[in-house]
Amino acid sequence: PHAMSPKITVELLRQLRQAMKNSKYITEPIQAYIIPSGDAHQSEYIAPCDCRREFICGFNGSAGTAIVTEQHAALWTDGRYFLQASQQMDNNWTLMKMGLKETPSQEDWLVSILPENSKVGVDPWIIAADQWKNMSKALSSAGHSLVAVQDNLIDTIWEDRPAPPSTKLITLGLKYTGLTWQDKVTALRGKMAERKISWFVVTALDEIAWLFNLRGSDIEYNPVFFAYAIIGISNIKLFVDSKRLLDPAVQEHLELDSPSKPELTIQCFPYESVYTELQAVCAALAPKEKMWICDKASCALTQVIPKSHRSAIPYTPLCLAKAVKNPTEIQAMKMAHIKDAVALCELFAWLEKEIPKGTVTEISVADKAEELRSQQRDFVGLSFPTISSVGPNGAIIHYRPLPETNRTLSLNEVYLIDSGAQYLDGTTDVTRTVHFGTPTDYEKECFTYVLKGHIAVSAAVFPNGTKGHLLDSFARAALWDSGLDYLHGTGHGVGCFLNVHEGPCGISYKTFADEPLEAGMIVSDEPGYYEDGSFGIRIENVVLVIPAKTKYNYRNRGSLTFEPLTLVPIQLKMINTDLLTQKEHDWVNDYHKKCRETIGAELKRQGRKESLDWLIRETQPIV
Amino acid sequence: PHAMSPKITVELLRQLRQAMKNSKYITEPIQAYIIPSGDAHQSEYIAPCDCRREFICGFNGSAGTAIVTEQHAALWTDGRYFLQASQQMDNNWTLMKMGLKETPSQEDWLVSILPENSKVGVDPWIIAADQWKNMSKALSSAGHSLVAVQDNLIDTIWEDRPAPPSTKLITLGLKYTGLTWQDKVTALRGKMAERKISWFVVTALDEIAWLFNLRGSDIEYNPVFFAYAIIGISNIKLFVDSKRLLDPAVQEHLELDSPSKPELTIQCFPYESVYTELQAVCAALAPKEKMWICDKASCALTQVIPKSHRSAIPYTPLCLAKAVKNPTEIQAMKMAHIKDAVALCELFAWLEKEIPKGTVTEISVADKAEELRSQQRDFVGLSFPTISSVGPNGAIIHYRPLPETNRTLSLNEVYLIDSGAQYLDGTTDVTRTVHFGTPTDYEKECFTYVLKGHIAVSAAVFPNGTKGHLLDSFARAALWDSGLDYLHGTGHGVGCFLNVHEGPCGISYKTFADEPLEAGMIVSDEPGYYEDGSFGIRIENVVLVIPAKTKYNYRNRGSLTFEPLTLVPIQLKMINTDLLTQKEHDWVNDYHKKCRETIGAELKRQGRKESLDWLIRETQPIV
Repeated sequence: PHAMSPKITVELLRQLRQAMKNSKYITEPIQAYIIPSGDAHQSEYIAPCDCRREFICGFNGSAGTAIVTEQHAALWTDGRYFLQASQQMDNNWTLMKMGLKETPSQEDWLVSILPENSKVGVDPWIIAADQWKNMSKALSSAGHSLVAVQDNLIDTIWEDRPAPPSTKLITLGLKYTGLTWQDKVTALRGKMAERKISWFVVTALDEIAWLFNLRGSDIEYNPVFFAYAIIGISNIKLFVDSKRLLDPAVQEHLELDSPSKPELTIQCFPYESVYTELQAVCAALAPKEKMWICDKASCALTQVIPKSHRSAIPYTPLCLAKAVKNPTEIQAMKMAHIKDAVALCELFAWLEKEIPKGTVTEISVADKAEELRSQQRDFVGLSFPTISSVGPNGAIIHYRPLPETNRTLSLNEVYLIDSGAQYLDGTTDVTRTVHFGTPTDYEKECFTYVLKGHIAVSAAVFPNGTKGHLLDSFARAALWDSGLDYLHGTGHGVGCFLNVHEGPCGISYKTFADEPLEAGMIVSDEPGYYEDGSFGIRIENVVLVIPAKTKYNYRNRGSLTFEPLTLVPIQLKMINTDLLTQKEHDWVNDYHKKCRETIGAELKRQGRKESLDWLIRETQPIV
Repeated sequence: PHAMSPKITVELLRQLRQAMKNSKYITEPIQAYIIPSGDAHQSEYIAPCDCRREFICGFNGSAGTAIVTEQHAALWTDGRYFLQASQQMDNNWTLMKMGLKETPSQEDWLVSILPENSKVGVDPWIIAADQWKNMSKALSSAGHSLVAVQDNLIDTIWEDRPAPPSTKLITLGLKYTGLTWQDKVTALRGKMAERKISWFVVTALDEIAWLFNLRGSDIEYNPVFFAYAIIGISNIKLFVDSKRLLDPAVQEHLELDSPSKPELTIQCFPYESVYTELQAVCAALAPKEKMWICDKASCALTQVIPKSHRSAIPYTPLCLAKAVKNPTEIQAMKMAHIKDAVALCELFAWLEKEIPKGTVTEISVADKAEELRSQQRDFVGLSFPTISSVGPNGAIIHYRPLPETNRTLSLNEVYLIDSGAQYLDGTTDVTRTVHFGTPTDYEKECFTYVLKGHIAVSAAVFPNGTKGHLLDSFARAALWDSGLDYLHGTGHGVGCFLNVHEGPCGISYKTFADEPLEAGMIVSDEPGYYEDGSFGIRIENVVLVIPAKTKYNYRNRGSLTFEPLTLVPIQLKMINTDLLTQKEHDWVNDYHKKCRETIGAELKRQGRKESLDWLIRETQPIV
């Protein structure tokens, strides 16, 4: 949760600057210390023990890097967080707004303010190898150097730092996964053999969870658990807190006692021993053997592998395999989205009745949404903190309501709710923007541009092999035409009962290195518009990439399009239908017909009569 | 000109492979030799003496790299040239189709076929520094090495290699340039000072021509001349064949005898002495002095600059300054496009009369177009070889008619002409696709999709700071919807009486590193569709980036759009108007109204009555 009053950091910065000169931790003083936002697995969401960047500066958004020098303290974050970061940090901190032309990169900024021959420190476990490389190169070429500080300097001044979590593991059967972990290991080894790779160091938590068909709850919202894996052509080494393997269900699932085949025997090691075990594996490598590691893995672990044996890859084969959902996973994701839509229909029907009473707040809606979701079968938890925002709070892109910011819903302001859940069968992420009174013409106009962008992506047809970033402008064209825009990407990959943000695909103007979209991939489609101080609009569905039927088929490449998995009505009251083309008009009606049929059947089955009435009313065709 | 019968290369390859082992040229034999397509300035179009890649393999398209090993010979080129390259090369050559998923990169291919510890040779003057770096890195990491071969091995086997050209220089006055070369040098020095740069090595021929307001004709179609320049804060060193400076007009223009200010004195050196002179400048550098050089400059020249002094930049300040046309240049470009449109209206009016006679061929139209353009004031030459193609020849994207491929225009086939000229006031590049009989429904359908794509880009409104590559999908959306596409980018920068292709902006899905579009930049907008064996369609205008008026102005960023400079009717007969939206319909009518008014006035002024009648008929509003 983020407070709207800034964290006071004078004393912390003083202590950190002392640590930067303390020979207990470093042989020579460092002139700057970088505090990235990740953990040792470069996770986006992190456990409390890893919230070091928040600890030092107060800003608790999901993305951002802090740098402290002897004189300065600065935080880099992106457009989603400009407002939030400026509210959470005190005057000791400079906010560096990424994506604006005038904002220096971390490297350029360091070079511009550091004295000659400076040393810049960073914890090598927390910085990704590719970031280390870029930063190190930029600093070297300006006469400075990047140094690995083994003791994390934030931890040295963080008195009541929480302990690392070790939650119970959940085993997932074929009904949810479609493939056993043994199938997945075998397929992975096939890809390793194809590329003559003898070992693969798995560091991303969602890749390990997916590979072993296991889930945990070490990190809130992300059903993962702290672990590493080293997969060889005939070895499987799993590094995880050994207490977690005492559970008989886990023992059986992993066949720890009686592996079906020798090459499918899992050797278990304590989590902390990955460093020394990887050293041992590397020491035994034959001259030409190659080892895969993601270039986003930690610098510390990457550098264990001698360069001659290291093959650093931008996306691992597990990341790619995980992104393309199999038929079982697709079916499960569809089921999760049906249940999630039921909960949201319940919520909106309830809101319509409750809001006039004047007692419904951002926080109470978020709580109610969680309660309604938790009534659905196989509910595990939320997939991210609910963004429940009224009026001006909606313009804070990744807002999260707190007691001191909590607004009451009314008939006069736009309400935006971006929420999602984890079910055993899938992960959801949906945003709807609604008005319970009468929206202004301007609000409707903006909403309709956003809707046009949403439809332009959702209904886009594009050749096989197209990267998602090529679709980003489709989402913006209607806004651009009127001089409007939004400062975030349009979509991200979504896991299947896994992280709500996953690679290697997405829809964003910011990257060029995404992997091409393929049938079976699942992404979000979420354009928006934000008017600072007034309101925020976003319309988000999770969509499945499917083959498209086209009139022609150029060079037999085949075409793709999207099928919405999210089936929650889009509020008709917010649409200025005069601005829609016939095609967009038909899209809205088709979408609402599908919502009515699919979610209607489930509401009926669950006996939720009032919500069914609401659904039928909200899915009337527009004329 | 490219012959449709392949060049026989058995003997040449034998000789080259001998040279690759000849200790006269190299100390140790090399196992592969790379033949890039450029010259020492990395020009796209090159002088006959530099056509080494064509000499060795027969393929004469504007882009492509050949690699010869002891066993293999392979050529990489892009989608524009697949057909042409396959026709021009004999069976000794493998065509590597770039952009297709299954095609290996040059690096991957070399690594896959080379014996262990191989040496790969290349002429360091012909390979760009960034390409050298990438290739060298990829080869090293596989145990091979890239070596600079000082003697160009192609030249050693090329018996009648043409001499390097040294044509007369043209001086351009303020009327055309808007700025004196002294103004430009001063502005450049301002940018150098801003970035604390004391020297800048200018290697791109169009940058040198633009900086000094000089033109030449060393390279066909591109009005440039072979030269280098080294600009210091108080020095100007120009490297050019000294005979060219004897011309009194050039002497006066460059103030060689009486410089107005000491820091604007040009020191002239022979072209060849750039290497030793740059060594001398580098030897005298103070410890912290930095020198700019483009990362696309030759490896040979780049490596003269010690790394500690070198600042390699993707786009030079001259490239950026040249891309944003000043008001005088914009006015001049508009004039050039009016004259060019007059010539094309004449051409199409003439074609309508002549085609029924059955005597008009691809070549005769190209000749006629050149004749008509040459009647216009300040005509200098063509800006690229005219693509004049009937029916199936139109599907060869960069086709150029030759006696053995020359087809006769008829009432039954689609005709595509992509042509342009150099005038003292500007450079043109326009493509029109027409039918002189009755097009089929399918031809009209495809044409209309291409037109929709052309309009989508031309009428696009987008925020300041947007990169051109984000607009590429707009050009494809209508084609994609029907399962169609085209395998080339959508637009390139266009010089002002300079190269018809220039950086740093463009509209292509292939790059991420283009510079943002700015008001004053000029690019082409040229989507297409090509049906192998049947027909080709392309609609190309040169368009100027201008500020757009929008209803709102998000974060005061301002918006941009395009204004067509090309004003030549788009054939109405080819349009299926049922497929147009109202907006597209209006765009066509507005465009034709502008063609009629602007070009009509000029046709009237020039007394070209028949063409004026044709123009009026071809610009009737559609209903």
